Amino acid sequence: MKLYSFFRSSASYRVRIALALKGLNYETVSVPMRDQSHRKDSYRQVNPQMRLPTLELDDGTRLIQSLAIIEYLDAVYPEPRLIPADPLTRARVQAVSQIIGSDIHPLNNTGVRGVLASMFGASEQALDKDWTPHWIREGFAAIEQMIAPGPYAFGDRITLADVCIVPQVYNARRYKVPLDEFPRVLAVDAAAQAHPAFQAAAPEAQPDAA
Amino acid sequence: MKLYSFFRSSASYRVRIALALKGLNYETVSVPMRDQSHRKDSYRQVNPQMRLPTLELDDGTRLIQSLAIIEYLDAVYPEPRLIPADPLTRARVQAVSQIIGSDIHPLNNTGVRGVLASMFGASEQALDKDWTPHWIREGFAAIEQMIAPGPYAFGDRITLADVCIVPQVYNARRYKVPLDEFPRVLAVDAAAQAHPAFQAAAPEAQPDAA
Repeated sequence: MKLYSFFRSSASYRVRIALALKGLNYETVSVPMRDQSHRKDSYRQVNPQMRLPTLELDDGTRLIQSLAIIEYLDAVYPEPRLIPADPLTRARVQAVSQIIGSDIHPLNNTGVRGVLASMFGASEQALDKDWTPHWIREGFAAIEQMIAPGPYAFGDRITLADVCIVPQVYNARRYKVPLDEFPRVLAVDAAAQAHPAFQAAAPEAQPDAA
Repeated sequence: MKLYSFFRSSASYRVRIALALKGLNYETVSVPMRDQSHRKDSYRQVNPQMRLPTLELDDGTRLIQSLAIIEYLDAVYPEPRLIPADPLTRARVQAVSQIIGSDIHPLNNTGVRGVLASMFGASEQALDKDWTPHWIREGFAAIEQMIAPGPYAFGDRITLADVCIVPQVYNARRYKVPLDEFPRVLAVDAAAQAHPAFQAAAPEAQPDAA
């Protein structure tokens, strides 16, 4: 498999964690967002949405959208299972994952920041100090009430929720968002970070880290 | 079951479609977003994220995040199945659903519009004419390449993709976004709108429509 990825892309980071947890080998194809490589025609051929990541299977089939990719991997390579089978537990894990995947991360990604700057004159400082922290804090405040570190977000097994929380905490730290109000989120992050799969998937451990 | 809903909330609309397709009865609890009812303490007790919808099961269990709720309903009430079992088809359906659920809708909801106005002085006109159309067009451009009306987005059975496309097309029309470039999206919308479940779930058919 090939993963079109960028070391700092949160959504790529999620898929890297899932691949590492399942012990799957893959080739990294770096798409450096800093020079807008993801907006070039060559990448549009790979991913019609021109976002990261894309997972290319061995037969050339390409999958997009990080949570859809992880759900695919979880069905085809079920060990360890990241999305619980029990419908109610699954709904809770998915709700936490979707708060991050829908209501925090998409508001703070590179493309949105660019449009906020060009359309509303948002300064880099306002984006870093006001906009990004606002959505992280609002989302984490909800998640803090939905998880119970044991040590992972939903008990002693890693789930999709942990796979989403760690990259979002990484992003929060990058923007120096204070996280003291979210001790459960921090506890889950610390527990997951101790796992070798999360370490292998970390931005700094990637071949395109710079 | 009770659905905390607002007639114009896109995410509520998705869950209403799924409930109607499965023939499930429920009570609507209206949470009028126009007077900020969803930000009141009473609703915070219901949904820690203070967003719509929330599905309350008969035993009082509450589920949040529309796609997580629909996945729960699909597991417990599998007829008709909205999320295909085949992992690859499922990944494609989920990718389309997540483009809407992550990269279009969350950028355009009421809460985000409010923050854009207060933080960056975005005018209602700029939000309606520039910001909202930008994300709808960008997302629909990708989806247009990912679906093949047959007559629904993924063939002759309704899937989660259709459940997400219809409310997003409704929103696009509300903001008068030209959709001529997206004939497949429009064809899927027309096919789905002809189904009684989509009609029953429409904003105008709700008890709190105004």
